This record gives sequence, structure tokens and C-alpha cells, in this order.
Amino acid sequence: MKTIDLTLDEIFSLAQTALLNAGSSEEMANIVADTVMRAERDGSHSHGLFRIPGYVASLVSGKVNANADPKVENVTPVLIRCDADNGYAPLAHARCLDKVADAAKIYGIAMVQITRSHHFAALWPETEALAEKGLVAFTCVSYMPMVAPYGAKEKVYGSNPISFAWPRKDDAPVVFDMATAAMAMGDIQIAARDGKELPSGVGLNKEGEATTDPKDIDPKTGGGMILPFGGYKGSHIAMMVELLAGPLVGETVSFETALKDNKDGGPPAGGQFILAMSPEITSGSESWDSSADALFGRLKSFDHLRLPGERRHKNRLDTGPRSVNTELVEKIRSLG
Amino acid sequence: MKTIDLTLDEIFSLAQTALLNAGSSEEMANIVADTVMRAERDGSHSHGLFRIPGYVASLVSGKVNANADPKVENVTPVLIRCDADNGYAPLAHARCLDKVADAAKIYGIAMVQITRSHHFAALWPETEALAEKGLVAFTCVSYMPMVAPYGAKEKVYGSNPISFAWPRKDDAPVVFDMATAAMAMGDIQIAARDGKELPSGVGLNKEGEATTDPKDIDPKTGGGMILPFGGYKGSHIAMMVELLAGPLVGETVSFETALKDNKDGGPPAGGQFILAMSPEITSGSESWDSSADALFGRLKSFDHLRLPGERRHKNRLDTGPRSVNTELVEKIRSLG
Repeated sequence: MKTIDLTLDEIFSLAQTALLNAGSSEEMANIVADTVMRAERDGSHSHGLFRIPGYVASLVSGKVNANADPKVENVTPVLIRCDADNGYAPLAHARCLDKVADAAKIYGIAMVQITRSHHFAALWPETEALAEKGLVAFTCVSYMPMVAPYGAKEKVYGSNPISFAWPRKDDAPVVFDMATAAMAMGDIQIAARDGKELPSGVGLNKEGEATTDPKDIDPKTGGGMILPFGGYKGSHIAMMVELLAGPLVGETVSFETALKDNKDGGPPAGGQFILAMSPEITSGSESWDSSADALFGRLKSFDHLRLPGERRHKNRLDTGPRSVNTELVEKIRSLG
Repeated sequence: MKTIDLTLDEIFSLAQTALLNAGSSEEMANIVADTVMRAERDGSHSHGLFRIPGYVASLVSGKVNANADPKVENVTPVLIRCDADNGYAPLAHARCLDKVADAAKIYGIAMVQITRSHHFAALWPETEALAEKGLVAFTCVSYMPMVAPYGAKEKVYGSNPISFAWPRKDDAPVVFDMATAAMAMGDIQIAARDGKELPSGVGLNKEGEATTDPKDIDPKTGGGMILPFGGYKGSHIAMMVELLAGPLVGETVSFETALKDNKDGGPPAGGQFILAMSPEITSGSESWDSSADALFGRLKSFDHLRLPGERRHKNRLDTGPRSVNTELVEKIRSLG
């Protein structure tokens, strides 16, 4: 793969220009470009510039509202409703995360219900932002159906990622962000692009048979489907995500969402569930931080064992240029 | 295995008598015996009479407070604190679940923080009780360290079960309840008792090598350890449970809990996290039930695919006697 070195500012500008050229408001372009830059910075490539062609496609097709103006209101003191106005999710987050954090710090626990949001980024930006305010955070979204429930041979669930973040008083938060699919669609697409085989257990071909070819698994190129991680237990968690990010927040489940999507390559409109809790309040104890630190210390005592999010936080310390796929950069530049 | 038929009333009485003989207050004996009877009724044997010797041991040793008087208070309108007073968990639940349900119905979301509770039952009784009140519920507890984090060869996590329940307007709730360990300890013990081998991937022996012998995996009999389900992703969820049921609620993580336990065979004192949400409020929509039902209908369209909790609900319709291991019944009778 040919690569080119870009500074973080250049990555931001490349994304911002593409979004502005596609008609995005300046506010949304800046927020989305910042999210894309931070993904590249942290080494989370499948959510970085790789997503720009999809972001642009949905602005151009009009599926995503280029001038979205998300509305945020308190339904109750601890329930924040955010109608994302069919814009990209990071714009909605910029308007609702401070509000849910404030509520959690007063009441111990608070929730955001997001509807009509187009989520095409990783989830850690939301949970990590809350953890940096001293809060425990959980979020999930559902997506286009591409995962066969355990025991089925048809696509029903999205890749349905979940993210959880735990704040630390004297350290970076511990944050995981993972698809409940055996592998994230972005990673499968990158493997296909790079001509790599996948481990067995990741997916099925369009006949519902096991395969290791990412092109056969990808619903768009091969009509196949991904499996949930961890057998029936992972499948239960994928189902929970469908319910939390769909009906619980007043949105649809993945296969209903797909019916109303225009299939332009960008993300469909959908819901998001965000939970924030203040351990200062919910623990009623001073020792919540030291007790969690004891666990993290124990985990770090094992050779080669990294805490979730640790690699991203380490990557982040490097403020130098990043290697980006040259073909991708040329493709993004040509979008203008 | 020799079995004996017992009516549901006989199962209740067998459990109740054993608990009373071990010194339990009438209130706690009745509530725990009811929980045990309902587990047997639903076919959840590893949480039924199988647990009575452990329940009795911890009453006799004094680890569990036979006259526990759990205290429940509102820390904020949506945060309920329950100090279980070192009694068995079902007694604490009897005092706090209505309160969290009431709060969730007003504010959309509410949480219970339980401390000093001895949890030795399944988790579905809590989540299902909330779902029967029209609420979405999630709970988790941590337990004695018996699970090696992904990539480690030492016990750090408990079997760390999670349960999630979704209410349905015209049907029984959909409820899953599962260990984040590859297999629940109770099931491993039952396999050992019955002389059965386990599938590979369930656990390691005391040297940290893969084995299929349940006796080698069981920390008590072989010094071994269980693996998390689903590789590193399941391991992340097990870590989340440690944090939610420990530091978040003002309790310790599993390996800290173990240090203060007297190892009498019953459950150690620990925390529990319970979340309740009202989809009527959080969805802001009338369609939450029909949208979830569309998902459940799709899942039911696949051959042999059962909804989580469906088998238990079907078992429950049978009000007749249950087959119970004769040796176990004799053991429980001899405890008096």
C-alpha cells in the first residue's frame, strides 16, 4: 500500500475541505473534520479519512442535512432529548454532551436520547469526553443490518458497537469501543481493500456458509454477513444494542432503518443511547478511584496486557505527521 | 443421576426449612426460598436447590447476617442507595425494586446502588420484575475471582453475570441472563458432579493451559480458571461489570472482595448495579413496543431460534412437580 505523510492539520483540512465542498455548514464540517482527525491521530483508521467518501456521498445525495440544527431539550431533569435534525452525529454531541454531564453531576445518573442522527464515527469520542469530566459513560448505536443473529443465516443486526469509559483521577480514562459484530465493517472493508484474508468465525457468505474472504462477507460486494462476536452471548448483546439505540430512544431497529435508507454509501439515520453516571455520587465513597485503580494495576501486571484505549492514548502523544493511504487521499481530493 | 419428583410447594418448603434451621429470619428465608423455587420452576437448576448448601453454610458461619435489615434511601430522586446489611440479595431487592421502578416511571431513568449484599441467585428475578412493570432493566454483579482476563493466566474477574430485560405490552418480557465467563460456575460444577466434559475454550487448568475437565477448571477442586466468553471483547465486558458492580456502587472489585471472604462456600459480600428505564418516557413515542416487536418477530421467523428467556417462560407454564437430584435433596434435608 502506497502511503503519504500528512500532518494532523493537513488531515483536518483535507476532511474539512471535502465536507465544505459537499455543502456542509461550516459548524458541522469543522466538528466532523475534527472527529476524523482525532481518529487518524489515535490510529483508529477505519473511522478516519476512510469515512470521508461516505460522509460526502450522503451530503451530496441530500440524505444528510448539510445545514442541520440539532435541538436539545430536557424531558426530565435527567433525560435529555436530542433531535439531530438529520445531521452528522458529532454535531449533535457538541450540543448535548455538556448537558448530560451537568445532569449526571447533580443527580448521579443521566441519559441522552438521540434521534435522526447519522453516526459514521467511532463511539469513544462521546464516552471519552464524558470520562474526562469525571463520569462513567456508556453508549451504543445500531446500524445497517449486516450481522446474522446466532443461529440465523440472514442479516438482522447492525455491527452495533458499544463503548464504555471509566474516568481516572490521575490518569487517562480507560475506554473500550468495539463492534458487537465479530469484526467492524470498516475493518472488513480495509481487509478487502488490502487483499487480506480474515480469521474464521468472522462471517458467512450470501448462502450462509462460513468464509474467510472479506469480499464475500461484505454485504455490498458479496451479499454476505458478519457473525456476532462470542456466539449466543454476543448475539444477546447485539440484540440489546438494537433495543437501546432503537425503540428505547424512539428510533427504529436496524432492519427497519435499512428500509428507509437511500443506500448512498453513507450512514442511515438512526438513534443513539448515551448514559452518564457520576461515581462520586453513585458510590457514596471516596475509594471508587483507588478501587478501580487496583483493578487496572492488576491487569497491567500481566505481560503484554494493555488496558482498553491505552494504545490510542499512546498514539495520541505523537503530534507528528501520520501515514495515510495515498489512493484514499487522492480520492478525497478528487471529491471536490 | 437418580431424581425425585417434588411439587413447587415442596421445593419451597425444602429450601425454607433449611434456611430457617440455619437461623435465617422468617422474612429472608421466605424470600430466598421463593427465589430458589422460581429457579427450579423455570428450569434454571444451577440457581435452584443446588445453591441451598451454600446459602446455609454462610448463615451458619455468620458471614451472612441471618437477621439482615436492609436500608433503602434516595440519594437523589433517581439514585436509590440500598445497604443490604450483609443479608441475601433477594431481601434487598424486595425493599428497593419498587422504589427504583417508581423513580424510573417519573424521571425516565433511575438506578439502584446495592452494597454489602450476598448474591447467590440468578439475575433475571430482578430484571424481569422491573420489565413486568413496563421498564427496561439491566443489572450486574461481580463475584469471587475465577476468570482469567483475555491474555492473562491468573484469576482476576468473577463470573460477572449480566441480565437485561425488555418489557412487552402483550407478551412476556424478553430477558437474558448470562455469565460473562464462557460458562457459569454453577454449570461447571454441575458438569463436574455429573462427570461430563466441557467444550474447549471454557477454561484453563492451574498452570494456565487449556483443558476440558470441569474439575481442573473449578478453582476449588483443581485450582484452574474460566475464560471470558468471546475473547478480548467478552473480557472487556467482564471488566465493565467489575467496575459497575464494584467501584461505581461503592464496593470492591472481585479480587479485593475475595481477600475479605471467609471461603465458607457461600457468596461473598459485594455490590450490585441496577438500572431501570421507562421506554414510554425515554422514547417519546408510542411505537417503542411495536418496533421492538418487529425485531422479535423477525428473530422468531428463523427455525429453531428462541428469544432469550423464552424457554424459562415456557417451563413456567407447567405448574406440576419437578425432577430434582435425589442426592441433593437428601443433602439439604440432612443440613437441618
